[in-house]
Amino acid sequence: MAKDFTSRSEDYSQWYNELVNKADLAEHSAVRGCMVIKPYGYAIWEKMQAELDRKFKATGHQNAYFPLFIPKSYLSKEADHVEGFAKECAVVTHYRLKNAEDGSGVIVDPDAKLEEELIIRPTSETIIWNTYKGWIQSYRDLPLLINQWANVVRWEMRTRLFLRTAEFLWQEGHTAHSTKEEAIAETEQMLDVYAEFAEKFMAMPVIKGVKTANERFAGALETYCIEALMQDGKALQAGTSHFLGQNFAKAFDVKFANKEGKQEYVWATSWGVSTRLMGALIMTHSDDEGLVLPPKLAPIQVVIVPIYKGEEQLALISEHANKIKSELETKGISVKYDDRDTHKPGFKFAEYEFKGVPVRIAMGPRDIENGTVEVARRDTKEKETLQQKDIANKIDHLLTNIQENLYQKAIDFREENTFKADSWVEFEEHLSKGGFISAHWDGTPETEDKIKELTKATIRCIPLNNKLEEGKCVLTGSPSKQRVIFAKAY
Amino acid sequence: MAKDFTSRSEDYSQWYNELVNKADLAEHSAVRGCMVIKPYGYAIWEKMQAELDRKFKATGHQNAYFPLFIPKSYLSKEADHVEGFAKECAVVTHYRLKNAEDGSGVIVDPDAKLEEELIIRPTSETIIWNTYKGWIQSYRDLPLLINQWANVVRWEMRTRLFLRTAEFLWQEGHTAHSTKEEAIAETEQMLDVYAEFAEKFMAMPVIKGVKTANERFAGALETYCIEALMQDGKALQAGTSHFLGQNFAKAFDVKFANKEGKQEYVWATSWGVSTRLMGALIMTHSDDEGLVLPPKLAPIQVVIVPIYKGEEQLALISEHANKIKSELETKGISVKYDDRDTHKPGFKFAEYEFKGVPVRIAMGPRDIENGTVEVARRDTKEKETLQQKDIANKIDHLLTNIQENLYQKAIDFREENTFKADSWVEFEEHLSKGGFISAHWDGTPETEDKIKELTKATIRCIPLNNKLEEGKCVLTGSPSKQRVIFAKAY
Ligand SMILES: [Zn+2]
Ligand SMILES: [Zn+2]
Repeated sequence: MAKDFTSRSEDYSQWYNELVNKADLAEHSAVRGCMVIKPYGYAIWEKMQAELDRKFKATGHQNAYFPLFIPKSYLSKEADHVEGFAKECAVVTHYRLKNAEDGSGVIVDPDAKLEEELIIRPTSETIIWNTYKGWIQSYRDLPLLINQWANVVRWEMRTRLFLRTAEFLWQEGHTAHSTKEEAIAETEQMLDVYAEFAEKFMAMPVIKGVKTANERFAGALETYCIEALMQDGKALQAGTSHFLGQNFAKAFDVKFANKEGKQEYVWATSWGVSTRLMGALIMTHSDDEGLVLPPKLAPIQVVIVPIYKGEEQLALISEHANKIKSELETKGISVKYDDRDTHKPGFKFAEYEFKGVPVRIAMGPRDIENGTVEVARRDTKEKETLQQKDIANKIDHLLTNIQENLYQKAIDFREENTFKADSWVEFEEHLSKGGFISAHWDGTPETEDKIKELTKATIRCIPLNNKLEEGKCVLTGSPSKQRVIFAKAY
Repeated sequence: MAKDFTSRSEDYSQWYNELVNKADLAEHSAVRGCMVIKPYGYAIWEKMQAELDRKFKATGHQNAYFPLFIPKSYLSKEADHVEGFAKECAVVTHYRLKNAEDGSGVIVDPDAKLEEELIIRPTSETIIWNTYKGWIQSYRDLPLLINQWANVVRWEMRTRLFLRTAEFLWQEGHTAHSTKEEAIAETEQMLDVYAEFAEKFMAMPVIKGVKTANERFAGALETYCIEALMQDGKALQAGTSHFLGQNFAKAFDVKFANKEGKQEYVWATSWGVSTRLMGALIMTHSDDEGLVLPPKLAPIQVVIVPIYKGEEQLALISEHANKIKSELETKGISVKYDDRDTHKPGFKFAEYEFKGVPVRIAMGPRDIENGTVEVARRDTKEKETLQQKDIANKIDHLLTNIQENLYQKAIDFREENTFKADSWVEFEEHLSKGGFISAHWDGTPETEDKIKELTKATIRCIPLNNKLEEGKCVLTGSPSKQRVIFAKAY
């Protein structure tokens, strides 16, 4: 399977595209910019969803569902929001088709034109805050802690599977609070939830920070984000959490009576992660042999492959294999026993390797004799022969070990690819190699724009709890009080 | 809470609308025909989803995701399908907005007109079979057993929450098979999955049957369905499973090489249930005091309400309540302990009654003294005082008992409201009272249409394994070999 597969050093972008296709994660659909998420890719997304959903509920949030359509006029109600989102949108203008009179097929019925066009949601702040107006009267109705799992559409001309598609899947949390402090605490809490998910489940280290004004979400007072570093030295924004102030409450006139009976505008947050995380996962761990998955997100954690000649051997091996399978399953490990007789073991090995199954167990007649199994781990490609006795505990530890190893490798990679730049020469030099660059910036949007223009690098974030340090802006030499993180980004 | 609440006998339809609103299940949105599913309603839908998803996976299906958009021309590829679905659709014609020159807001950019209009999926057979063409080459690729959880849009002018909305949530299974027999077996298997879910989880008895040609899904050779009877005597189609033959394979040219290497068209099924099930659930069990939920679908199965004066009493009660709560949770029962000091016990009782929480436990100072609790069940409104000892087992049994009781009540109701009609006079007489009517029909679409025209009753289904019996059509007197089920329907 790994033949005809471009290596990362040859062409990283080509490697990514081939991997997504050959590992059966996703493919382009016939509709420009829209992807089909294939069953194996969707199974990974489902594991992400399940854990995120658990974390949202553990922090007091409930799920709900709001309309796909947003009346066009709603987008204009919040001044910054309209600038950011009323651009590349899918616009519904009609609600009926009819048969063409010449029998050539169906055509749009011109009589069925909507009075007001509907936009397919690019994000749901407007429709949700319009709804919240009816739900919030008093401080007793607050906080309102709601999340939605949904599809959204942002028309994109240049798309890449998972990373940038016209339609994508995501969750969007939208909360309402009685005080500014509580809303900011929520924004920060959800950033922590995302960071913990990225690090503990995706085994992907992230930097927590805030965006500069230039890079803020349209309508937010502050955008918090987590930023990860991909293998090719480019940054990827993996999640954002926005403190929206009272902007949407004012735009949709959402007030509450406080304890003193006085009317106040409600404070808002929103936060989201999307199927883009699939791209981040791939570009953090995978290698020239295909996908590498952290055990906590692997749909199949362990595959057992029998090596046999004839049905008698298979029956004997299957007996032991099924026993091991059920021992592993008792520990909550997901196992596939692949006894297909249509494919040879070598083919199966290559297939599961390419699909990133963390642990492969092979069992042949000699293993049955000796009471052993051959265990191969996907991350390091190491193989060892283990006694079947107590195998479930051994595999359980191995999976934990793989999870930790992937995280540590990613941490090491990021450390090796994070540089301090104290002059423009250094900045450009490091940038040409890729990675995060920690550098002083004079704090002006003009300088930020200029650097982007010159190098395509953007400020990924101002890290939270950033160490204050006197310095000079790498571009202008003007004084600066802290370093920020620059990188080229997805 | 139940004051200002219309009773079922006063106005069933009004009762339904008020219930959906007051129990916080859903509400109309600002977008015509689209609903907002509120957190409590969505939590019930999530329980439905979880169990259905488990059943789909247990029968070998995997989830995937296909585009929201369908190119207009795709709808025309299958002749019957276009007749059925290329009608009331949401049509995307443009992909960009821009600022109006007069500063009045945003307008659709006329330069951003799509070459081919995109339809928001009303169902996904066309886009999915267009995709399957790339996935199926050989018999080894079959069967392909895929399900999608998604939103769909069918433009509706007269909408009712959950029962008929322009946008709704559903799952749609789409499977591909190498033989006709296997596809039919799949269609029947999924009907059984739906029926079991309806009966065991929703506590809603259903009749399994097939639709007449008139009522078939557009593009299907056979539509199987489950039909339930609502409290007002109207039928509700709760799920459908379609045998699609080779129609979509031919429309999208999807062939496979069989074991002999010969090219054949693939056989197809599709099957779905939607948020409409929420309406069915409500209209099967609920009463004049609000929602009634079967324990297996109740987001909160047990609520514990403390009855106290002062913080000292509360502290003592809370200690016991939390102990009971954790005992119940150990058994997998979902429990809410409502110790809010902002509301009186009576208010809480009314609220949980209205929201259909199956079991309410109340605990006062005397209960602490006596080691008792007061247990009230929502279905029969019975109350009893129980010893706290072994309370988790008692509640567990009670929940099972409530689940069974609701099912039995619904079975009894259906039996009392199913009538045989052997003449037109009898038919009209029974129909005026509502319910299922079992009657002979001459098998022609003309008679079926005529009966619908005269009475608004439709043939809900020809029951599976129907007893054959000589008879005469209730309308025409022509010979008939079996009875079919008529009813007015949602
Ligand atoms: Zn950042
Ligand atoms: Zn039926």
